[in-house]
Amino acid sequence: MAPLFERLAILGLGLMGGSLALVAQAKGLAREIVACDPNRRSLTEALQRGVILQGFERAQEAVQGADGVLLAAPVRAILRLLPEIAPALAEGVFVMDLGSTKREIVAALDALPSHCVAVGGHPMAGKEVAGFGAAAATLFRGATFALCPTARTDERARQVAEALVAALEAQPLWIDATLHDEAVARISHLPHLLAGALAQAATPAGAARRMAASGYRDTSRLALTNTDMLLDILLTNTIPIREALGRARMALDTVDRLLEFGDEAALRAWWEEARQRR
Amino acid sequence: MAPLFERLAILGLGLMGGSLALVAQAKGLAREIVACDPNRRSLTEALQRGVILQGFERAQEAVQGADGVLLAAPVRAILRLLPEIAPALAEGVFVMDLGSTKREIVAALDALPSHCVAVGGHPMAGKEVAGFGAAAATLFRGATFALCPTARTDERARQVAEALVAALEAQPLWIDATLHDEAVARISHLPHLLAGALAQAATPAGAARRMAASGYRDTSRLALTNTDMLLDILLTNTIPIREALGRARMALDTVDRLLEFGDEAALRAWWEEARQRR
Repeated sequence: MAPLFERLAILGLGLMGGSLALVAQAKGLAREIVACDPNRRSLTEALQRGVILQGFERAQEAVQGADGVLLAAPVRAILRLLPEIAPALAEGVFVMDLGSTKREIVAALDALPSHCVAVGGHPMAGKEVAGFGAAAATLFRGATFALCPTARTDERARQVAEALVAALEAQPLWIDATLHDEAVARISHLPHLLAGALAQAATPAGAARRMAASGYRDTSRLALTNTDMLLDILLTNTIPIREALGRARMALDTVDRLLEFGDEAALRAWWEEARQRR
Repeated sequence: MAPLFERLAILGLGLMGGSLALVAQAKGLAREIVACDPNRRSLTEALQRGVILQGFERAQEAVQGADGVLLAAPVRAILRLLPEIAPALAEGVFVMDLGSTKREIVAALDALPSHCVAVGGHPMAGKEVAGFGAAAATLFRGATFALCPTARTDERARQVAEALVAALEAQPLWIDATLHDEAVARISHLPHLLAGALAQAATPAGAARRMAASGYRDTSRLALTNTDMLLDILLTNTIPIREALGRARMALDTVDRLLEFGDEAALRAWWEEARQRR
């Protein structure tokens, strides 16, 4: 297949951007791949492995002459990068991000110069480990890849975005940025806060550490998520997250009251509802 | 090795009791294995597969002439069974249970006739699937197996309990019943309630269902736990569970307040503490 891009600039060469670079290189998605990352080691490793052609420390330089720009940084870094690179973007360039929240980013993509096309993206894939060292060409395989239309999304932008998602072997899901953020608040951000609360409330020490089985490990696994990434999420999706958190706190208030009264029938109903919803 | 028991009676032939029966048969832990279960199908299957010699519907009949009795039923069923089988227990019989909470059961084991020896047990192993069909000889392998002393625990009882745990390839952990219940409230029962609250607050429907990734699945996995088993746990360990739940609710109250004020430094500290405790 013909390359999608002549020159693809990947901003952020961590787990996501690195995995993207590996796929782009393996599948020939671009004639040239360049990248920008504050971490010199990631750039050096990617250069040495022949994954990228050139590494940059400044995003404005990296996007020069690129017809494809993928922003794979934490959400607030993307929000800072977009106005910074805007003046350097070439005519007709395709811009997409991989940020975990979409409403604020889509607003920033809307504000790009009118000679760009842009789509908001969010692959529902990840690990608790970060960095280029953890990147893998298979990271996105089978995952749902949310795509959010922007004021800069035309038919060509849709096609390029879908071709990119297809190359990652992921499943595209077009969704409005606001709906996206409400959904991830419930199914991703709330689980993080519950895992964090569990870790705070139930630190296994001594004998308890030896008794902690897969239930504790799985339920608290998300508490290992990188702090900067999580803060970006919490601070760019606060209202939907507080809404979801409010529902979980209400459910816990209810079960605590039922426990207090030893109300077996109501406890049974509470748990059955949880089981069925799961 | 010489069999540990001449005649071993297993009361409850579900996931736990069935797995125990499979190990006992494979390793020749008893010359005869008999079992009791309200589910006739489990008994028939175990008989047909040659795992047990005889199946009983009444526990009192099953324990007749047994020198080993293992209770592998839900907690409150164990509490009902113990006084029921007490008059039928043979001189010197070794009694152990596998219930998930230990304080009430150990009190019931304390009350067994003085010609019995008894130990409270709790293997930290399990699955979300139940029944003899899911039983496996490898279920306990590598798991921590809590052992709680009772008023009926003498040196021989300790040795038999440890030999049994060794045969299951699990790791024995002697622990006072009250400390056990406080520990499992935090590391097992609280995660169940948080998983249930997540399932109630964040039912993935429509697009959200397609976006739900491993984070949601892992954090809510325990919400699939069998209702009867969970109710038994909630109603026999209420005070330690409410205590652990109170700490988790406080952590969630805190993070909600920090979100309300957008207090980045305090949110960072909250998450870092959770990460480190995990």
